[in-house]
Amino acid sequence: MSKRLDLKGVCSFLKKNDDYLILTHSMPDGDTLGSAYALCAGLLKLGKKAKVVCADPIPARYGYFTDSVEFPEFEPKTVISVDVADIKLMGALGVKYENEIVLAIDHHASHREFAENLFLDATAAACAECIYDILNALRIPLDDAMVQALYTGISTDTGCFKFSNTTPKTHVIAAELMAYGIDFSEINRVMFDTKSKSRMEIEKMALGNVRLLYRDRVAIIAVTNKMLRDSGCSDSDLDGITAIPRSIEGVQIGVTMRQKAPKVWKISMRSYPPYDVAAICAKMNGGGHKYAAGCEINGTLRQARAEILKHVREALED
Amino acid sequence: MSKRLDLKGVCSFLKKNDDYLILTHSMPDGDTLGSAYALCAGLLKLGKKAKVVCADPIPARYGYFTDSVEFPEFEPKTVISVDVADIKLMGALGVKYENEIVLAIDHHASHREFAENLFLDATAAACAECIYDILNALRIPLDDAMVQALYTGISTDTGCFKFSNTTPKTHVIAAELMAYGIDFSEINRVMFDTKSKSRMEIEKMALGNVRLLYRDRVAIIAVTNKMLRDSGCSDSDLDGITAIPRSIEGVQIGVTMRQKAPKVWKISMRSYPPYDVAAICAKMNGGGHKYAAGCEINGTLRQARAEILKHVREALED
Repeated sequence: MSKRLDLKGVCSFLKKNDDYLILTHSMPDGDTLGSAYALCAGLLKLGKKAKVVCADPIPARYGYFTDSVEFPEFEPKTVISVDVADIKLMGALGVKYENEIVLAIDHHASHREFAENLFLDATAAACAECIYDILNALRIPLDDAMVQALYTGISTDTGCFKFSNTTPKTHVIAAELMAYGIDFSEINRVMFDTKSKSRMEIEKMALGNVRLLYRDRVAIIAVTNKMLRDSGCSDSDLDGITAIPRSIEGVQIGVTMRQKAPKVWKISMRSYPPYDVAAICAKMNGGGHKYAAGCEINGTLRQARAEILKHVREALED
Repeated sequence: MSKRLDLKGVCSFLKKNDDYLILTHSMPDGDTLGSAYALCAGLLKLGKKAKVVCADPIPARYGYFTDSVEFPEFEPKTVISVDVADIKLMGALGVKYENEIVLAIDHHASHREFAENLFLDATAAACAECIYDILNALRIPLDDAMVQALYTGISTDTGCFKFSNTTPKTHVIAAELMAYGIDFSEINRVMFDTKSKSRMEIEKMALGNVRLLYRDRVAIIAVTNKMLRDSGCSDSDLDGITAIPRSIEGVQIGVTMRQKAPKVWKISMRSYPPYDVAAICAKMNGGGHKYAAGCEINGTLRQARAEILKHVREALED
């Protein structure tokens, strides 16, 4: 069990300790990186030593804030994590630092405790909101890179203020961050409105094979290895492609099949209430959230699709 | 020349007069409709008679707020417009009411005066921000439909707070509107994340004919009448399709050609700084905002495209 810290407690902790190693989750997104870099820059301003590490390479598109933070040379003494809901989500770093993490800062209601101390604000839409509160409470002035990092965390974790996790406070923080004069629309353009040519190609292909079933309540698309080769797509180009089937008007359950090997398919399902795709995926040894879940199936495209649709149909009939 | 009213002036005007006809622009979007319906509901609460008219049918997807406002029977005496930058943008209504519009409420810096009185706040990201200020100043309590209408106007005109027209004030108003407890994420889902089958079809076709030119800095797509017929799309399904060309990585100027008649093309251009598409469109007798403008060209697809690209190339070379 972690010891719970409040805002004052986490601030005392950060002031008292030094030589920070800040861990992000693996497959880093805008929130874990924005939180980590803003906190790191803040600790450096406090006169502390700090650096950020991630189990995976940091995508170049976050360079506008990650490149501005210079890590000093030092031997880390205080290992903390940001935006990490479960130690398993840190990849190799989770194994390496398993018993050394003295503070976790997080916003996931589903947080599975792994650190000695925990600052958890489950009302925050993004972990970057927690970091913003902490930096404010510590009275650390924000520079451009910190503001950009925090805005990125908040914007990306809320789908640019679109999703239901957004709160009035999220908007108020966004207003305060914007007042620093950052080019937030350029950030949003890079995060949301820029597609590589290969991504555009794979979307065209995926749209080309959408199947609508059961009075258009179910949509299913398949992304085959051949499509990936033909479009020149890498795995990271596929981000968000799972949202496409459910985005069609009237569709209640959207299914994306992604070929992992000739006869292995990774299945992602997205649904709208009341359809519980975690339950559907559980029947195929998968799981997840009620409206966003997944599983893996073996077989040809045809066999795998038939298997999925059998379970989806049963759920519709229930 | 219109007489300029400030916030106090527009409030006095609205209190003094009665029997309002509120005009929206044609091909109505979330902001003109949100502004019109919120204002109409507000005037009704003030004990006035008011109704909204539009030259085009109101798309069913706005029903969550348009259906809640009931118009009384009356003979209109005071004709006003909301979110209309130019009388030409009102279609048949502009012709019908040309000399009768006594008040225009707008937020376009490019507003071309046509009404006797004008309340113009060019710092507002959406006309709905102006209406929010007016309703507040009139101390009219907001009901759910009004809040939904205002949120829709603000959210749609800013691309869900994504675009550079968003201001800190936009976020503050969003926070205040959210505090009423509306289901804003459902609004955003309907506005941004739902596509009709025919829309999906036309996107696939448009992605299929993207041309990338001038070292991939320019992308141009054409939507022909045949594509509309084949996909079953109506004009309202084309909303936002103009964003597609510019969304490709590296593209600075995105051009969408939309066939209006066999040899007539409506051109929409979107750019990123420093490219001024209003200037490019002005050379073809069009206009608009610096980074979002349009014009109309006659000729075959090939001729029209050549004409556009000549001007685009000149702009790139400048």
